[in-house]
Amino acid sequence: MPYQPPVRDHAFLLRDLLELERYANLPAFADASMETVDQILDEAARFTAEVLAPLNSVGDKEGCHWAADNSVTTPKGFKAAYEQLVAGGWPGLGSDPAYGGQGLPHVVNLAFSEMSSSANMAFSMYPGLTHGAYSAILAAGTPEQKDLYLPKLASFQWGGTMNLTEPHCGTDLGLLRTKAVPNGDGTYKISGQKIWISGGEQDLTENIVHLVLARIEGAPAGTRGISLFIVPKFLPDAEGAPGARNSVKCLGLEEKMGIHGNATCVISHEEATGWLLGEENRGLSIMFIMMNEARLGVGMQGLAQAEAAYQAAAAFAKERLQGRSLTGPKNPDGPADPIIVHPDIRRMLMDSRAIIEGGRAFLFWTALHGDLAEASPDEAARQKGHDYMALMTPVLKGFLTDKGFQVCSDAMQVHGGAGFTEHFPVSQYLRDCRIALIYEGTNGIQALDLVGRKLAADGGRAVMGFFAELDGYVAETEALGLDELKPFTEGLAKAKGELQEATLWLMQNGLANPDNAGAASTDYLHLFGLTALAYMWTKMARTAQAKIADGAADPIYAEKLTVGRYYMARVLPQTAAHLAKLKTGAETMMALPAEAF
Amino acid sequence: MPYQPPVRDHAFLLRDLLELERYANLPAFADASMETVDQILDEAARFTAEVLAPLNSVGDKEGCHWAADNSVTTPKGFKAAYEQLVAGGWPGLGSDPAYGGQGLPHVVNLAFSEMSSSANMAFSMYPGLTHGAYSAILAAGTPEQKDLYLPKLASFQWGGTMNLTEPHCGTDLGLLRTKAVPNGDGTYKISGQKIWISGGEQDLTENIVHLVLARIEGAPAGTRGISLFIVPKFLPDAEGAPGARNSVKCLGLEEKMGIHGNATCVISHEEATGWLLGEENRGLSIMFIMMNEARLGVGMQGLAQAEAAYQAAAAFAKERLQGRSLTGPKNPDGPADPIIVHPDIRRMLMDSRAIIEGGRAFLFWTALHGDLAEASPDEAARQKGHDYMALMTPVLKGFLTDKGFQVCSDAMQVHGGAGFTEHFPVSQYLRDCRIALIYEGTNGIQALDLVGRKLAADGGRAVMGFFAELDGYVAETEALGLDELKPFTEGLAKAKGELQEATLWLMQNGLANPDNAGAASTDYLHLFGLTALAYMWTKMARTAQAKIADGAADPIYAEKLTVGRYYMARVLPQTAAHLAKLKTGAETMMALPAEAF
Repeated sequence: MPYQPPVRDHAFLLRDLLELERYANLPAFADASMETVDQILDEAARFTAEVLAPLNSVGDKEGCHWAADNSVTTPKGFKAAYEQLVAGGWPGLGSDPAYGGQGLPHVVNLAFSEMSSSANMAFSMYPGLTHGAYSAILAAGTPEQKDLYLPKLASFQWGGTMNLTEPHCGTDLGLLRTKAVPNGDGTYKISGQKIWISGGEQDLTENIVHLVLARIEGAPAGTRGISLFIVPKFLPDAEGAPGARNSVKCLGLEEKMGIHGNATCVISHEEATGWLLGEENRGLSIMFIMMNEARLGVGMQGLAQAEAAYQAAAAFAKERLQGRSLTGPKNPDGPADPIIVHPDIRRMLMDSRAIIEGGRAFLFWTALHGDLAEASPDEAARQKGHDYMALMTPVLKGFLTDKGFQVCSDAMQVHGGAGFTEHFPVSQYLRDCRIALIYEGTNGIQALDLVGRKLAADGGRAVMGFFAELDGYVAETEALGLDELKPFTEGLAKAKGELQEATLWLMQNGLANPDNAGAASTDYLHLFGLTALAYMWTKMARTAQAKIADGAADPIYAEKLTVGRYYMARVLPQTAAHLAKLKTGAETMMALPAEAF
Repeated sequence: MPYQPPVRDHAFLLRDLLELERYANLPAFADASMETVDQILDEAARFTAEVLAPLNSVGDKEGCHWAADNSVTTPKGFKAAYEQLVAGGWPGLGSDPAYGGQGLPHVVNLAFSEMSSSANMAFSMYPGLTHGAYSAILAAGTPEQKDLYLPKLASFQWGGTMNLTEPHCGTDLGLLRTKAVPNGDGTYKISGQKIWISGGEQDLTENIVHLVLARIEGAPAGTRGISLFIVPKFLPDAEGAPGARNSVKCLGLEEKMGIHGNATCVISHEEATGWLLGEENRGLSIMFIMMNEARLGVGMQGLAQAEAAYQAAAAFAKERLQGRSLTGPKNPDGPADPIIVHPDIRRMLMDSRAIIEGGRAFLFWTALHGDLAEASPDEAARQKGHDYMALMTPVLKGFLTDKGFQVCSDAMQVHGGAGFTEHFPVSQYLRDCRIALIYEGTNGIQALDLVGRKLAADGGRAVMGFFAELDGYVAETEALGLDELKPFTEGLAKAKGELQEATLWLMQNGLANPDNAGAASTDYLHLFGLTALAYMWTKMARTAQAKIADGAADPIYAEKLTVGRYYMARVLPQTAAHLAKLKTGAETMMALPAEAF
């Protein structure tokens, strides 16, 4: 069965859980009535399922082609699909109307992005990075830069890239060597080699706008001497059309485990002409605008691959006849029962749903806070939106990709031997998903960002606010006195207590020995993610319970209560193990000398 | 850094932990003095590192080639390496001297097998399955069949395969359709299609001995009507040399996520000539001799890929300079510190070692029981050996492959973006390892075998014996009154208590509703595996402590104590989560109707 976009779940989240219509007074939301949103979801589903999904396996098997003239050809069909993407008006969904966008809330655009990524992750990375470049120029560009680049990027006529990594420097950007020499006319000569540049060269767009980190001659060493430059493949002419070829070229493509349809390029800047974006030596802070958006997008990719893999596994489990139910035949007229009757198959499918549906709620809930950070007239709501976006981004990136990979692996397991062959789609989902744990900052870096920066920011305001919100929600829900909700409030309260205990432990032990914070970080991130999903499942259960009490007949509400109870019983108990592990500190972890490895 | 066989750890296990020389009075062990064993380990290390490891990536990138004449060519260099394997006398290491083998204990041969599998898993599957066919014929063949086939299989001159799976039937062999029609002369005509036959066709051996499950005309339906046949590719002539070509052929190869160097064949039997092996309709029980050996071998493969991936990760972590230690520079004269200084990198490396070294001890300890089951003059030791082999086989297969895959994934994570490219070896380890969770019975099937068959066998004799052994060992170790061993005895006693509680829960709830047993099975298997490794780490710690007290200066002993403490602090706390999850039973897991997926 091909991928089916989860329109019903998206509508549940936007309409019932997040109650999008409550925000109709805000500018971005005014045009996002649920009627409009439903139409967008339906059309997004059609486009992604009919145009992008059929090219997913093509892209995997064919890959991209590099030629000696430094050009790159994307897999067969990608260019035509990209033209349909542009023609369909999809690029502008969440972009500023001032630059040709539709200005809808990001949370609505997110539904489209998720569907695109499930349907074809490698393809969707091209527009995904373009949107990141759009956001960085929107935030830091001069009026002229905005006028020149934003309409082209908002419409996806031009592509965008992030040029960070060099052979000797990835996570540690302070080691960066690419240099920028002023030409005296406001432009710079950029020289250096960048690697792992997604979409660094392709045949989809008439121009490519590289955002390049480089060090201006004489700038300080380390991260305080890094600036960001706009380096277009073709220099815009007086009319803003692609003009002379810039001396930036693709020297080759990486062979990778997955995302074969996306060109991962070695990019050489050979005295290429670049324009400074933002202030000198402030490049990293601007790049992080793009990076934070990308991190949220990578969390979404983990979820999206999990959704597609789960769907393949569920379809297989309902079709494949093998063995009999332990409680008596369920398909007595057939030669065997479908394998979905077996508890261990159910375990994997239920684990997957509990993570996917809870994770999607967490992602969309956070994205709504991102919209409120920009658009709310209420100062407190804007601050909370900013706080939560900053706090939740590393959790979403790390947790959803770690768990997304596990879901893909379980989906392969449901398939048995068939899953290991390339005749079935699940190997590709697993291979494609794996990069999401690595790029835009490995999940270990996300965990360090969480414990090292985000917890302590503004005196812990964000995390304290989150704890208070959880306490309030538990108390308010308990006050309803509903038996159906008891497993939820009990589980959430326990998890929140453990997360708070872990936070306190970090405060007490991380300062004394910073290695304690590093040693605890990944367990802490997972404890946080599990607790956040417990909150989401409690919210979803309460919403579903109210709908059922109101007489709603759609089976989705009863399913939410069941999958939620499964989450509380079968997934959430993991929190105690994370707490126990992290409280043992760094001592045994760091005890061996490096030579002993 | 290329793969380095872990000779030092093998010697520690065989000499110090298992005290192989204690068994010098047993026939198989008489020739296995530690001096001989050390020589074997050294030569095995040389052969696997120098001959097999360099071909690993070649096999992955080139794969096998099928031609229209139904022939299969293995990757470049495989045939020459196979000739060296045969010439080196490696095949006979663990085989019966009556058929040309050296008759050494299986536990010694296991060290060689592990090294081979780490060096080149796809290559090592060819001799691995040959040894399985050898074992099945040794157990069930007529004297003529043994004389004809065993010397050829023991020397690896001929290859062996298992022909079980058909397109519509994998786990559920009762659905098997391949049929056998008696020719009246003691031979049968075998007809049917088999899939996923590893080494079903290749260019390494002069003949291939297929062991084929088929249903004799008129036999009962289901698993009670299945017989096992010997179907050689070339019919042996009067001298036992390969004669006329049998009508069994390879119709094609599977495209797979990994193990590209091993030919996974579609095999068509077209009235092929076969000989019954063992009794009519008793084929499954004989196949399970081969299958059980294979399952232990697959657990070993999970461990072997983990070892190779860990080594690559450790080498990368010591070389790659990126960032500074949280506690101050460790490489102040360099541009950055090696990433091994970062706690989250250590976490992954230490998790890996805790699993690999504990898992290897568990595997070797079990294999020794397998040797004692065959060779001990003591009836009780033989029975215990049989009991433990039966009980531990599903745990070793499921636990070591699940954890082995996790180690491979962590090793990729240590590499960051480099790990996702095919320039580094870790993608292959991850992809190759993934099949081990699936074949020879998926890990879900292992878990069902454990809770459904192995626990209850002989009134629970094996598991009760194991619990008593753990209690005894804890008491004996506590009585030593050594502080260094306290974290071990405390952790082991707690884990054993949880495992016993889970076992009791299964006895009480599995009968009332068999779905409860199925729902608990995977968590139970992991709880069992973690407890078994806690036992192994306690044994290793006590052994190491005694050595240190005796003045032994080799750093391996102090390392064992440190890695063991890490296991107890950072890995073992997972047991409580498994117990909590499994005790919630099947209710939420099975609550949704199948259509809801």
